[in-house]
Amino acid sequence: MSDDSQLLLSIAILGGTGKEGKGLAYRWAMAGYSVHIGSRDSAKAQTAAKELMELLEGEALVDGMTNIEAAQKSNIVVLTVPYSAHKDTLESVKSYLKGKLFVDVTVPLVPPKVSTVRMPAAGSAAQEAQQILGEDVQVCAAFQNISHEHLLDDSEVACDVLVTGTSKEARAEVIKLVQAAGLIGWDAGPLENSVVVEGLTSVLIGINKKYGSTHAGIKITGANHSVD
Amino acid sequence: MSDDSQLLLSIAILGGTGKEGKGLAYRWAMAGYSVHIGSRDSAKAQTAAKELMELLEGEALVDGMTNIEAAQKSNIVVLTVPYSAHKDTLESVKSYLKGKLFVDVTVPLVPPKVSTVRMPAAGSAAQEAQQILGEDVQVCAAFQNISHEHLLDDSEVACDVLVTGTSKEARAEVIKLVQAAGLIGWDAGPLENSVVVEGLTSVLIGINKKYGSTHAGIKITGANHSVD
Repeated sequence: MSDDSQLLLSIAILGGTGKEGKGLAYRWAMAGYSVHIGSRDSAKAQTAAKELMELLEGEALVDGMTNIEAAQKSNIVVLTVPYSAHKDTLESVKSYLKGKLFVDVTVPLVPPKVSTVRMPAAGSAAQEAQQILGEDVQVCAAFQNISHEHLLDDSEVACDVLVTGTSKEARAEVIKLVQAAGLIGWDAGPLENSVVVEGLTSVLIGINKKYGSTHAGIKITGANHSVD
Repeated sequence: MSDDSQLLLSIAILGGTGKEGKGLAYRWAMAGYSVHIGSRDSAKAQTAAKELMELLEGEALVDGMTNIEAAQKSNIVVLTVPYSAHKDTLESVKSYLKGKLFVDVTVPLVPPKVSTVRMPAAGSAAQEAQQILGEDVQVCAAFQNISHEHLLDDSEVACDVLVTGTSKEARAEVIKLVQAAGLIGWDAGPLENSVVVEGLTSVLIGINKKYGSTHAGIKITGANHSVD
């Protein structure tokens, strides 16, 4: 009964007071996960959790706390911070992530030219996370291309999620999280491939600017995601 | 009458005896371009050109010659070689490309792990081409994700083309070539963004392997490509 096991799982969303983090929290709470919103400022996290509980009409488990507390309490830890806070946040929670599944949503945008791809020396934000967290943490990356706009309502998101990560098993776990959030996930290979997915966000920002759209995304064609 | 101007244009396809090159040649010849197939071996190029002329029932202008001759005779030069021949081919035609539009289709796959992204030191194959060719050549990159399988018949290709390049004007020219080939093209920004498009080919190869498909591709969603 693997579908029931998710009821036991708790997800931390570090930096979860931002729009992307709140959107994912909303969708996972709807799907029955226990969601711990983390922030450097626990009062902010509590406010975000309260907002989400109201939106969910109390029918869910969402609470707010510091990033460290959220990481400690959860089996799955998701990071949704601006790139400028990436390294510091990882360092601050590093010792609580051993043996856990870590999902990086960070896109290493370099203002002001956010539509030009600029990767960190490690190759990508996700590879940088792996370097900081070490081999004891299963690092995956996902959701970098999803516009937050449609996560907080229940509308269909016309953007697939490309999941990269250190192992096939970890990627399969994250694809389950993607599906729980009502999105379509694809195994996009090893963590080295995260450069494509992170960089695609800059391409999509550029397309929004050039073609006057607000939430350009991508869909994989010619393959069937439900074959596994 | 900018649509008529393409009748005056000739396109060289260096390494055009391969499947991708032949497929693009077929589509551009159909659209009324004069196409020069280039190869290191001019006899091979002539054979490929003859095959295409038969397929096109003589209603087109395709001929075969050496890469150098093709580059000399053309306003637009497209490169479709395996990555192992990228640098040498560029060096051999470099002096004939000044002031021309160059379109790199090369994907820097590193066998045997072709589903893992591995970029050259320059950042991408297209950036490497720019380094070799210098500032006098407008370098763009496109078509890296298109499976050759459907280029040689007239069926719809369910994969969009992301066009990167040194200038907006050059990208707009290449988007016209994409449309002439019956495909949908998007301005995907500066040449630095080519890492995303080249790397995406590895992701798509991995998806084919994992999901049992043969020609996974991508579509941009949430934006209108005909707005310009």
